[in-house]
Amino acid sequence: MNELKFTATAKSASPAKTIVEARGFKIIIDEPDTLGGTNHGANPVEYLLGALAGCLNIVGHLIAIELGFTLRGLELELEGDLNTNKLFGTSSENRAGYSEVRVKITPDADADKELLDKWLAIVNDRCPVSDNISNPTPVSITLA
Amino acid sequence: MNELKFTATAKSASPAKTIVEARGFKIIIDEPDTLGGTNHGANPVEYLLGALAGCLNIVGHLIAIELGFTLRGLELELEGDLNTNKLFGTSSENRAGYSEVRVKITPDADADKELLDKWLAIVNDRCPVSDNISNPTPVSITLA
Repeated sequence: MNELKFTATAKSASPAKTIVEARGFKIIIDEPDTLGGTNHGANPVEYLLGALAGCLNIVGHLIAIELGFTLRGLELELEGDLNTNKLFGTSSENRAGYSEVRVKITPDADADKELLDKWLAIVNDRCPVSDNISNPTPVSITLA
Repeated sequence: MNELKFTATAKSASPAKTIVEARGFKIIIDEPDTLGGTNHGANPVEYLLGALAGCLNIVGHLIAIELGFTLRGLELELEGDLNTNKLFGTSSENRAGYSEVRVKITPDADADKELLDKWLAIVNDRCPVSDNISNPTPVSITLA
């Protein structure tokens, strides 16, 4: 059970709106009016931040158990810088995606700063989404 | 307007469930029972696939306009392979995240295969989420 495959299917509802289905869950993705959408949902790069947040929560709790301290919960603030030049084709100087992602975590925990620093390093190292953003991952996109 | 910052805040509802807020939109992330959750939403790595799908739809329509063909819509199938050994701490041999992500696109378009191949290469190159998965991106995680 350690080799898992996760899947999703998706369909365009409009040029900016996408309906994704993953394991029966529906995810609505859209852009705000200012980016050409109908604002029916968060946009793709906001979902990317969300995926990272969800992953850090799960792995945070897992590692707290391993390190033997009580983690009652946590709050996260996430932000990412994105230059739209490459996306919109006005320049190829910048990369297409986030140039940097920053996360601030506020854990509600019975642990001192030293232990929390150790915890954070392990969480970052073992979080799948953090790994997929931090390190290169082959993405194969083909016509069906 | 080409330097944008996207943000999200998040709060743990349980060790596996996270409530994310991005621009007023609420995103519920959870794990199935089999992975220790309460199954109230898709999980983080499924949201990662969703973010990629939403991004490919938007950029796909943008590039179709640039290349001058009609794209009526598209469907996507996405999958990713993930070995859970590093996540669960049973081995550090594998990476934490997806080792590979595969996407099949079915465009409904007035374009021949040659033009669609060209389209796909540009879409992949200019899609922010595809870039953030394919290429390294600094992720800074700090205690608040």
